[in-house]
Amino acid sequence: MKLLPFIESSAQRGRSVENSGPVVLSTRIRLARNLASYPFPHRANVSQRRDILSRCFKAVKEMMPETEGGVALEISELSVLEKQFLVERHLISRELSNAEAGAGVYINGDLSCSIMINEEDHLRIQMIKKGFNFKPVWKAINDLDTALERHLDYAFSHEYGYLTACPTNLGTGMRASVMMHLPGLVIAAHMEKVIKAVSHLGIAVRGIFGEGSDANGSVFQISNQLSLGDSEAEIFKKLTAILNVIIAHELGSRQILLESKKSRLYDKLGRAYGILKNGYFVSSEEAMNLLSLIRLAIDLEFLPEKSREQIDRLFMEVQPAHLQIVAGNNFDADERDSFRSDLLRKEFAKFSRLNLK
Amino acid sequence: MKLLPFIESSAQRGRSVENSGPVVLSTRIRLARNLASYPFPHRANVSQRRDILSRCFKAVKEMMPETEGGVALEISELSVLEKQFLVERHLISRELSNAEAGAGVYINGDLSCSIMINEEDHLRIQMIKKGFNFKPVWKAINDLDTALERHLDYAFSHEYGYLTACPTNLGTGMRASVMMHLPGLVIAAHMEKVIKAVSHLGIAVRGIFGEGSDANGSVFQISNQLSLGDSEAEIFKKLTAILNVIIAHELGSRQILLESKKSRLYDKLGRAYGILKNGYFVSSEEAMNLLSLIRLAIDLEFLPEKSREQIDRLFMEVQPAHLQIVAGNNFDADERDSFRSDLLRKEFAKFSRLNLK
Repeated sequence: MKLLPFIESSAQRGRSVENSGPVVLSTRIRLARNLASYPFPHRANVSQRRDILSRCFKAVKEMMPETEGGVALEISELSVLEKQFLVERHLISRELSNAEAGAGVYINGDLSCSIMINEEDHLRIQMIKKGFNFKPVWKAINDLDTALERHLDYAFSHEYGYLTACPTNLGTGMRASVMMHLPGLVIAAHMEKVIKAVSHLGIAVRGIFGEGSDANGSVFQISNQLSLGDSEAEIFKKLTAILNVIIAHELGSRQILLESKKSRLYDKLGRAYGILKNGYFVSSEEAMNLLSLIRLAIDLEFLPEKSREQIDRLFMEVQPAHLQIVAGNNFDADERDSFRSDLLRKEFAKFSRLNLK
Repeated sequence: MKLLPFIESSAQRGRSVENSGPVVLSTRIRLARNLASYPFPHRANVSQRRDILSRCFKAVKEMMPETEGGVALEISELSVLEKQFLVERHLISRELSNAEAGAGVYINGDLSCSIMINEEDHLRIQMIKKGFNFKPVWKAINDLDTALERHLDYAFSHEYGYLTACPTNLGTGMRASVMMHLPGLVIAAHMEKVIKAVSHLGIAVRGIFGEGSDANGSVFQISNQLSLGDSEAEIFKKLTAILNVIIAHELGSRQILLESKKSRLYDKLGRAYGILKNGYFVSSEEAMNLLSLIRLAIDLEFLPEKSREQIDRLFMEVQPAHLQIVAGNNFDADERDSFRSDLLRKEFAKFSRLNLK
């Protein structure tokens, strides 16, 4: 199986792709596209889905040079663990991991681009870069989309724009999102208010794994809800304005915590540090919540900036499939919690002490 | 006010009195006695209560040489903080701390003996020694009682023995108890079963501060329920047999935890250690529960035996009144939790690492 060595080297390169800087971890754009001559995936039969997959893989491979180091994978050929690994890394959706025959994904060599085939639409093209900046991500994905369009006959209407399986994706077929780390708003219990306020402005707030997922580790995916009516540039502009307001609120919450609830904040950070250093049984969810607090401690300069990369890597590595792939073992939940805490204790043994002053 | 310097030096000497060894921390006996010529305290008027107090203090002082360093205190002259301090040290009961005029306590120089006056009975004589051994405690309290009887006219009936305000104390007027540290039974969730089983055998199990108190830090006070019908020797014999069974169950529970739930046990111990070392906001109750786990870690040789004295001292010092007397300040609850965690972090900074292997 070729996935594992690919993952190992790509994860190494891909470290620069996700999670950087305080508040906004990464910027992501995805485009929904469909081929004109086929029914949407959920209405296509197996042979049509296989046709779509092979046509899309062919087009993708033609424009992605061999040296770029990408990989084209059929979902049905992946193990449960491999599929879960790709979900944890946000390279495929949970929906695609459950897809039947004819579903696939192309992943490029640094994990910054993935193209899902026969998920809800024929193509779901995703591009991700670290930090908060729609422009370079848009340029990269738009170039790729234009190139793909030369090989594939996209379903497009002059009235509705790109045609998609779900009407919420009509028009640009674009969803732009950022991953935000909002521990200040979570600790201050203001997230519910924020989610309510922005939903009136056409903005969706979701947990780290998209639709229907919980917000583990105070990480939220924030995106435009509708793709029809506005141009891409207008969507970016609106979204950026709102995201800047959320960033300001997050930084404000942190300041208030530091000024008027210092002991409470220090207690949270200290306990997180103490448990990561000394725990023997830590669930995936708890680990992400504890690491989130350590990331906040780095933002507040209670821990050295050079530890940020380690924490961001652990955010990935403590997840169930990542853990089992590192261990080379299938674990039950108890064994995972135990192995995870061993990993965390080892990593945190290297840490200099938390400098809360 | 003479209480504070007395407390400081006595606490120093008194360290050897309470908390020693695994499972049984200390052995305690108390006798209920009343003067023949006065109504019981709750039926006596203020002038009678004052008479009783002065007669009892006089008798006590006559037999306790000045050099022994004891102190006789009128409850009405103590501050709220001082009364709470004496409750935390088990030198007076909560009931006495709330008593009106005419209530007092005599405390000897190493805090091993206290005589409450005008609590539920005219005299409540208490003697405590570390470890598990009724004989020496009985000898000491019996000698004291005999000496007191030479100066005081006890209410005694040949049919009912010593007469007491509450019929459950008739007969010997004696309650014998031990303080037990039972974290194994608490973690295994077997305490309820134990309490139920021994209550059928005439044994009462209470939290650390006696009747109606919660079991903080897995410390339980276990005593005979009735004092009538059996001689003192028979009470000690029955009680000792049952306490030995409880000790065996406690040690058995610890062994089972080590053998079949090692990760879960290590996790509890590791987290306790991590929070004590890094917390910034620790309540009195949580502190006692965390210290209880550290005491268990010492029993299991994961921490050096020489740390036991430090942990037993902290068990006392983290309590609200102790904390405020050390700080020389009246704190609100938040300030206490903050000051307590500062003390704990400082003490645990000295600790060598938890050696869970």
